[in-house]
Amino acid sequence: MDTANTIAERYIAVWNETDAARRRALIAESWLDGATYVDPLMAGKGHAEIDGLVSAVQARFPGFRFALLAADGYGDRLRFSWKLGPADNDDMIKGTDFAVVEDGRLREVNGFLDKVPAAA
Amino acid sequence: MDTANTIAERYIAVWNETDAARRRALIAESWLDGATYVDPLMAGKGHAEIDGLVSAVQARFPGFRFALLAADGYGDRLRFSWKLGPADNDDMIKGTDFAVVEDGRLREVNGFLDKVPAAA
Repeated sequence: MDTANTIAERYIAVWNETDAARRRALIAESWLDGATYVDPLMAGKGHAEIDGLVSAVQARFPGFRFALLAADGYGDRLRFSWKLGPADNDDMIKGTDFAVVEDGRLREVNGFLDKVPAAA
Repeated sequence: MDTANTIAERYIAVWNETDAARRRALIAESWLDGATYVDPLMAGKGHAEIDGLVSAVQARFPGFRFALLAADGYGDRLRFSWKLGPADNDDMIKGTDFAVVEDGRLREVNGFLDKVPAAA
Protein backbone atom coordinates (compact mmCIF):
# COMPACT_ATOMS: atom_id res chain seq x y z
CA MET A 1 0.00 0.00 0.00
CA ASP A 2 1.03 3.64 -0.26
CA THR A 3 2.96 4.85 2.73
CA ALA A 4 1.05 5.92 5.81
CA ASN A 5 2.22 9.48 5.26
CA THR A 6 0.99 9.65 1.65
CA ILE A 7 -2.45 8.35 2.54
CA ALA A 8 -2.69 10.65 5.55
CA GLU A 9 -1.66 13.71 3.51
CA ARG A 10 -4.33 12.86 0.93
CA TYR A 11 -6.88 12.56 3.73
CA ILE A 12 -5.91 15.97 5.14
CA ALA A 13 -6.13 17.50 1.64
CA VAL A 14 -9.80 16.48 1.48
CA TRP A 15 -10.55 18.31 4.73
CA ASN A 16 -8.80 21.43 3.44
CA GLU A 17 -10.39 21.47 -0.03
CA THR A 18 -13.20 24.06 -0.05
CA ASP A 19 -13.93 23.81 -3.78
CA ALA A 20 -16.87 21.37 -3.82
CA ALA A 21 -16.06 19.70 -7.16
CA ARG A 22 -12.38 19.24 -6.33
CA ARG A 23 -13.26 17.96 -2.86
CA ARG A 24 -15.63 15.35 -4.25
CA ALA A 25 -12.98 14.24 -6.75
CA LEU A 26 -10.42 13.90 -3.95
CA ILE A 27 -12.90 11.87 -1.86
CA ALA A 28 -13.56 9.52 -4.77
CA GLU A 29 -9.81 9.02 -5.25
CA SER A 30 -8.95 8.47 -1.62
CA TRP A 31 -11.99 6.72 -0.08
CA LEU A 32 -13.59 3.42 -1.14
CA ASP A 33 -17.23 3.44 -2.17
CA GLY A 34 -19.21 2.66 0.97
CA ALA A 35 -16.36 3.74 3.26
CA THR A 36 -17.30 4.77 6.79
CA TYR A 37 -16.27 7.70 8.94
CA VAL A 38 -17.04 8.07 12.64
CA ASP A 39 -15.79 10.39 15.37
CA PRO A 40 -17.25 11.52 18.72
CA LEU A 41 -19.41 14.17 17.01
CA MET A 42 -20.54 12.73 13.69
CA ALA A 43 -20.67 9.72 11.37
CA GLY A 44 -21.20 8.99 7.67
CA LYS A 45 -21.07 6.23 5.08
CA GLY A 46 -20.18 6.62 1.41
CA HIS A 47 -18.70 9.49 -0.57
CA ALA A 48 -21.72 11.80 -0.44
CA GLU A 49 -22.14 11.58 3.33
CA ILE A 50 -18.41 11.96 3.93
CA ASP A 51 -18.43 15.03 1.68
CA GLY A 52 -21.33 16.38 3.75
CA LEU A 53 -19.39 15.93 6.99
CA VAL A 54 -16.31 17.68 5.60
CA SER A 55 -18.45 20.55 4.27
CA ALA A 56 -20.12 20.92 7.65
CA VAL A 57 -16.78 21.16 9.46
CA GLN A 58 -15.54 23.73 6.92
CA ALA A 59 -18.73 25.77 7.47
CA ARG A 60 -18.31 25.52 11.25
CA PHE A 61 -14.66 26.66 11.10
CA PRO A 62 -14.34 29.02 8.11
CA GLY A 63 -10.75 29.67 7.06
CA PHE A 64 -9.31 27.04 9.37
CA ARG A 65 -6.71 24.63 8.05
CA PHE A 66 -5.93 21.02 8.91
CA ALA A 67 -2.30 19.92 9.07
CA LEU A 68 -0.78 16.47 9.54
CA LEU A 69 1.33 16.04 12.68
CA ALA A 70 2.38 12.39 12.41
CA ALA A 71 1.45 9.18 10.62
CA ASP A 72 2.35 5.53 11.05
CA GLY A 73 0.92 2.23 9.94
CA TYR A 74 1.41 -1.46 9.24
CA GLY A 75 -0.45 -3.89 7.00
CA ASP A 76 -3.78 -2.25 6.21
CA ARG A 77 -3.85 -0.24 9.47
CA LEU A 78 -3.04 3.42 9.69
CA ARG A 79 -2.86 6.02 12.44
CA PHE A 80 -2.36 9.74 12.06
CA SER A 81 -2.52 12.84 14.19
CA TRP A 82 -3.61 16.24 12.94
CA LYS A 83 -4.26 19.76 14.09
CA LEU A 84 -6.89 22.28 13.05
CA GLY A 85 -6.92 25.99 13.61
CA PRO A 86 -6.84 29.48 12.15
CA ALA A 87 -3.50 30.74 10.85
CA ASP A 88 -2.64 32.55 14.08
CA ASN A 89 -3.46 29.67 16.42
CA ASP A 90 -3.03 26.59 14.38
CA ASP A 91 -3.34 23.84 16.96
CA MET A 92 -6.60 24.98 18.53
CA ILE A 93 -8.03 21.49 17.94
CA LYS A 94 -6.03 18.26 17.70
CA GLY A 95 -7.02 14.69 17.02
CA THR A 96 -5.84 11.20 16.16
CA ASP A 97 -7.55 9.06 13.55
CA PHE A 98 -7.32 5.30 13.06
CA ALA A 99 -7.98 3.97 9.59
CA VAL A 100 -8.23 0.76 7.61
CA VAL A 101 -6.98 0.91 4.03
CA GLU A 102 -7.89 -1.31 1.07
CA ASP A 103 -6.29 -1.07 -2.38
CA GLY A 104 -4.73 2.25 -1.40
CA ARG A 105 -8.06 3.85 -0.46
CA LEU A 106 -9.64 4.42 2.94
CA ARG A 107 -12.24 1.84 3.95
CA GLU A 108 -12.85 3.10 7.48
CA VAL A 109 -11.75 6.07 9.57
CA ASN A 110 -12.39 6.39 13.30
CA GLY A 111 -11.50 9.74 14.80
CA PHE A 112 -10.64 10.70 18.35
CA LEU A 113 -10.10 14.19 19.80
CA ASP A 114 -6.87 14.98 21.63
CA LYS A 115 -7.38 18.70 22.26
CA VAL A 116 -10.49 20.86 22.15
CA PRO A 117 -10.80 24.53 23.10
CA ALA A 118 -11.96 25.15 26.66
CA ALA A 119 -14.67 27.46 25.34
CA ALA A 120 -15.87 25.19 22.51
CA MET B 1 -21.46 -0.18 27.19
CA ASP B 2 -19.06 -0.23 30.15
CA THR B 3 -16.96 2.86 30.41
CA ALA B 4 -13.82 3.09 28.30
CA ASN B 5 -11.74 2.98 31.44
CA THR B 6 -13.33 -0.20 32.77
CA ILE B 7 -12.87 -2.06 29.51
CA ALA B 8 -9.31 -0.83 29.16
CA GLU B 9 -8.42 -1.87 32.72
CA ARG B 10 -9.84 -5.34 32.05
CA TYR B 11 -7.75 -5.52 28.87
CA ILE B 12 -4.59 -4.55 30.75
CA ALA B 13 -5.36 -7.15 33.44
CA VAL B 14 -5.23 -9.89 30.78
CA TRP B 15 -1.75 -8.80 29.70
CA ASN B 16 -0.58 -8.85 33.32
CA GLU B 17 -2.11 -12.21 34.28
CA THR B 18 0.62 -14.84 34.25
CA ASP B 19 -1.51 -17.66 35.69
CA ALA B 20 -2.60 -19.48 32.53
CA ALA B 21 -6.04 -20.58 33.76
CA ARG B 22 -6.91 -17.17 35.18
CA ARG B 23 -5.65 -15.47 32.02
CA ARG B 24 -7.82 -17.67 29.81
CA ALA B 25 -10.84 -16.94 32.00
CA LEU B 26 -10.19 -13.20 31.77
CA ILE B 27 -9.86 -13.45 27.99
CA ALA B 28 -13.17 -15.29 27.73
CA GLU B 29 -14.85 -12.62 29.86
CA SER B 30 -13.42 -9.62 28.05
CA TRP B 31 -13.06 -10.70 24.40
CA LEU B 32 -15.77 -11.94 22.02
CA ASP B 33 -15.36 -15.39 20.48
CA GLY B 34 -13.60 -14.83 17.16
CA ALA B 35 -12.23 -11.44 18.23
CA THR B 36 -9.14 -10.20 16.42
CA TYR B 37 -5.92 -8.62 17.63
CA VAL B 38 -3.30 -7.03 15.41
CA ASP B 39 -0.27 -4.83 16.09
CA PRO B 40 2.92 -4.11 14.14
CA LEU B 41 4.57 -7.31 15.42
CA MET B 42 1.85 -9.95 15.68
CA ALA B 43 -1.76 -10.90 15.02
CA GLY B 44 -4.30 -13.44 16.25
CA LYS B 45 -7.97 -14.41 16.05
CA GLY B 46 -10.03 -16.05 18.78
CA HIS B 47 -9.38 -16.66 22.48
CA ALA B 48 -6.71 -19.33 22.04
CA GLU B 49 -4.59 -17.31 19.64
CA ILE B 50 -4.94 -14.15 21.71
CA ASP B 51 -3.88 -16.11 24.78
CA GLY B 52 -0.87 -17.32 22.81
CA LEU B 53 0.12 -13.76 21.90
CA VAL B 54 -0.17 -12.58 25.50
CA SER B 55 1.87 -15.57 26.74
CA ALA B 56 4.55 -14.85 24.16
CA VAL B 57 4.88 -11.23 25.28
CA GLN B 58 5.04 -12.31 28.94
CA ALA B 59 7.79 -14.80 28.03
CA ARG B 60 9.69 -12.13 26.09
CA PHE B 61 9.48 -9.62 28.99
CA PRO B 62 9.49 -11.65 32.21
CA GLY B 63 8.40 -9.67 35.26
CA PHE B 64 7.32 -6.66 33.24
CA ARG B 65 3.98 -5.01 34.00
CA PHE B 66 1.50 -3.20 31.79
CA ALA B 67 -0.26 -0.11 33.14
CA LEU B 68 -3.05 1.98 31.69
CA LEU B 69 -2.16 5.61 30.92
CA ALA B 70 -5.41 6.94 29.44
CA ALA B 71 -8.66 5.73 27.91
CA ASP B 72 -11.46 7.37 25.99
CA GLY B 73 -14.25 6.22 23.73
CA TYR B 74 -17.62 6.86 22.13
CA GLY B 75 -20.29 4.52 20.79
CA ASP B 76 -18.58 1.16 20.29
CA ARG B 77 -15.14 2.72 19.71
CA LEU B 78 -12.41 2.79 22.30
CA ARG B 79 -8.87 4.11 22.50
CA PHE B 80 -6.36 3.57 25.27
CA SER B 81 -2.70 4.17 25.92
CA TRP B 82 -0.50 1.95 28.04
CA LYS B 83 3.04 1.48 29.19
CA LEU B 84 5.10 -1.65 29.76
CA GLY B 85 8.29 -2.03 31.71
CA PRO B 86 10.13 -3.50 34.67
CA ALA B 87 9.44 -1.97 38.07
CA ASP B 88 12.46 0.32 37.92
CA ASN B 89 11.81 1.69 34.43
CA ASP B 90 8.14 1.34 33.91
CA ASP B 91 7.58 3.18 30.67
CA MET B 92 10.26 1.43 28.63
CA ILE B 93 7.63 0.62 25.99
CA LYS B 94 4.46 2.61 25.31
CA GLY B 95 1.60 2.09 22.94
CA THR B 96 -1.90 3.14 21.96
CA ASP B 97 -4.58 0.62 21.07
CA PHE B 98 -7.77 1.24 19.18
CA ALA B 99 -10.67 -1.15 19.80
CA VAL B 100 -14.20 -1.96 18.77
CA VAL B 101 -16.51 -3.22 21.52
CA GLU B 102 -19.67 -5.32 21.24
CA ASP B 103 -21.91 -6.25 24.19
CA GLY B 104 -19.22 -5.07 26.58
CA ARG B 105 -16.55 -7.36 25.12
CA LEU B 106 -13.71 -6.60 22.72
CA ARG B 107 -14.40 -7.49 19.10
CA GLU B 108 -11.24 -6.03 17.60
CA VAL B 109 -8.05 -4.47 18.91
CA ASN B 110 -5.48 -2.72 16.72
CA GLY B 111 -2.28 -1.78 18.50
CA PHE B 112 0.26 0.90 17.68
CA LEU B 113 3.63 1.54 19.32
CA ASP B 114 4.42 4.99 20.71
CA LYS B 115 7.78 4.30 22.33
CA VAL B 116 10.23 1.44 21.89
CA PRO B 117 13.69 1.07 23.45
CA ALA B 118 16.53 2.25 21.21
CA ALA B 119 18.29 -1.08 21.73
CA ALA B 120 15.25 -3.32 21.17
